[in-house]
Amino acid sequence: MADASVTQFHVTVARGGVTAARGFRSGAVASGIKKKAGALDLAVIATEQPVSAAALFTTNLAQAAPVLVSRRHLELSAGTAQAVVVNAGCANACTGDDGLANAHRMASEVGAALGCMPEQVLVASTGVIGVGLPMDKVTAGIEQAVQALSSDRGSEMALAIMTTDPFPKEHAVIVHTAAGSFTVGGTAKGSGMIEPNMATMLGFLTTDAQVTPDLLHRALVESARETFNAITVDGDTSTNDCVFLLASGASGVRIDDESYPALLEGLLAVSRELAISIVRGGEGATKLITVNVHDARTTADAQRVAKTVANSPLVKTAIHGADPNWGRIVAAAGRAGVQFDVNQATVHGGGVLLFENGLPHDDAAPQAEEHLQQSEIRIDVALGTGGGKDATVWTCDLSAEYVRINGEYRT
Amino acid sequence: MADASVTQFHVTVARGGVTAARGFRSGAVASGIKKKAGALDLAVIATEQPVSAAALFTTNLAQAAPVLVSRRHLELSAGTAQAVVVNAGCANACTGDDGLANAHRMASEVGAALGCMPEQVLVASTGVIGVGLPMDKVTAGIEQAVQALSSDRGSEMALAIMTTDPFPKEHAVIVHTAAGSFTVGGTAKGSGMIEPNMATMLGFLTTDAQVTPDLLHRALVESARETFNAITVDGDTSTNDCVFLLASGASGVRIDDESYPALLEGLLAVSRELAISIVRGGEGATKLITVNVHDARTTADAQRVAKTVANSPLVKTAIHGADPNWGRIVAAAGRAGVQFDVNQATVHGGGVLLFENGLPHDDAAPQAEEHLQQSEIRIDVALGTGGGKDATVWTCDLSAEYVRINGEYRT
Repeated sequence: MADASVTQFHVTVARGGVTAARGFRSGAVASGIKKKAGALDLAVIATEQPVSAAALFTTNLAQAAPVLVSRRHLELSAGTAQAVVVNAGCANACTGDDGLANAHRMASEVGAALGCMPEQVLVASTGVIGVGLPMDKVTAGIEQAVQALSSDRGSEMALAIMTTDPFPKEHAVIVHTAAGSFTVGGTAKGSGMIEPNMATMLGFLTTDAQVTPDLLHRALVESARETFNAITVDGDTSTNDCVFLLASGASGVRIDDESYPALLEGLLAVSRELAISIVRGGEGATKLITVNVHDARTTADAQRVAKTVANSPLVKTAIHGADPNWGRIVAAAGRAGVQFDVNQATVHGGGVLLFENGLPHDDAAPQAEEHLQQSEIRIDVALGTGGGKDATVWTCDLSAEYVRINGEYRT
Repeated sequence: MADASVTQFHVTVARGGVTAARGFRSGAVASGIKKKAGALDLAVIATEQPVSAAALFTTNLAQAAPVLVSRRHLELSAGTAQAVVVNAGCANACTGDDGLANAHRMASEVGAALGCMPEQVLVASTGVIGVGLPMDKVTAGIEQAVQALSSDRGSEMALAIMTTDPFPKEHAVIVHTAAGSFTVGGTAKGSGMIEPNMATMLGFLTTDAQVTPDLLHRALVESARETFNAITVDGDTSTNDCVFLLASGASGVRIDDESYPALLEGLLAVSRELAISIVRGGEGATKLITVNVHDARTTADAQRVAKTVANSPLVKTAIHGADPNWGRIVAAAGRAGVQFDVNQATVHGGGVLLFENGLPHDDAAPQAEEHLQQSEIRIDVALGTGGGKDATVWTCDLSAEYVRINGEYRT
């Protein structure tokens, strides 16, 4: 049963977040970058020596200085890192050459404090864009954060990375395998908006599994596809979005191709929880909407339809108003750019059949309406083309509050 | 100067809409399809005999019965038609085989009343979806509308096609050429929403120029690209969208490859006015936003960026709040999927430079803010990649009223 020993596993929820896994310490301080006095706004994650690291960066062609620096550092260090430094309150985006120099300086200062090369430090920023970092505060903050490094204060980091997120987000799980247990944990921040700013998603994941950089990257890409890349608040992609993953190896559980599914499952569990929390905390959100698309030719097609439905302002406002408006869902699916057969497609809302054979089931509307008045909404769309592939996307409703937050806060 | 005689022309605005051009009559009646008693809701346009006709239909894969019927009729008639019949109040979409039979019947009944083949009749519907047409009312309405046909009551048709449009839309121009003058006119309806409905755009264009079906189709495609296809309210495409164009030839001015630019210019003038009116009448709209994109590799690239900016909820809410938020515009341009150089790109708001060389011009913000408080907003984005191609897209702002119209009307 050697085979079963590595491929059989189960996942349980653990306490904590970014320092739940062994080998990680974090420190968070109030450096004064955020306007609110005493607000935590700068954090460092550190390991004892360089460890495997992977990252996903925004696909936006307008990329902030910290994104450029972190990408370069990961290349130079061949997929390893010893620390991550992050600040909230200033995105260091659209800040030109000075911004780039400041992002480099953040890495250098953390490296100097920890005794590692600057290339072993990854950098992230979120907050107002087009404004330079107050480097005197950043420098002092980094010094304090490194001094504060601890293995049991990960929750403070979850607070330090928030901008206008309504609540902090952290999650951790233990993956139990016959070869031993390892932990995956993390924290994330979501769609907050501070004028003149844009929604930024940052994710920081850690594990004490022992993983090569290549396998770690593969696991991050694969897990993000179904989690961080399967959520949408308003379809916008920021200049600063990124997700980092570090593997300390401190559990002694080695991940290879065979035990890879156990790592993936742990990552999926943590990332899914964090991603859904980001949607729950979406601007003006009153409902979490799960859009499941079935019966597509490919998973990518299914996700494309799910995203089109999830981003449709007409669908999002209808759900906000608890209106079982299958017509808007059919129309969104029909324009997604993938195969769709309106006469074979079905639409369910909260498990209630609303549309089938090209015709509505209006008699079911009251029952669906009841479901839509809840805070957790489920929409199922089958494309009717017989492909068999599924995808899920999470989004939130579009409320007048969203407009107020993003447009009317100046008045 | 034979060359100049056909290629030199100028355009002047004319009175009227769909019957401004010679050879067209229209009749509009209150058939009782709309709930509001006495509201005009069914109209017919007719010519004396079959004339050249062209149409553009929704690209949505969920297509309403009238779209299917009109497309088929244009094929069968080799690009000719003698009439168009349209009703508002019921979209005849998602109505199955009965719906298809009813759309066919509308064409047959008009054909019978006019003495032409059903295939010479085009059909359009807009309004509530998933509900069958009340065919007794439709039949009686068609009879009355054909009896009411007149060459000077086109404005009634502009009223009859409205759903929740805040105002009727019609426009006409005369194109003066050395070979004589011809008229182009039309009416359109835009983004209205009646539960459980979706925004539908319908356009009806007429001209008394003499044009072959092929050339007419080319002109419609080309003019729509920069007008009806260059507007967006919320990025949704309906099951019923279509634009029809009929050419009676009654002016005696023959359009060939050489005089084609004169026809195109006339069509562009009418279509642009109607398209912009649709945006002005967008749901909850308080501002008309013109997004100009410059310096793209292709016109299609430029339009793609312009649409991404125009559809960004973050950009639309910022403009609603008169916030010169260049960051959201840069971020939207950066994620549009075309070449973009953030260090070479520029963003102007109302002609005021807001972003250049990767850096904001925050000193200009107050001046731009003043512009954004107007009801007509102009945004210019140059991609900085040196392509030289431009495109313009019109949209409206995203207001809390949009959410109320589309989500909260049930409460």
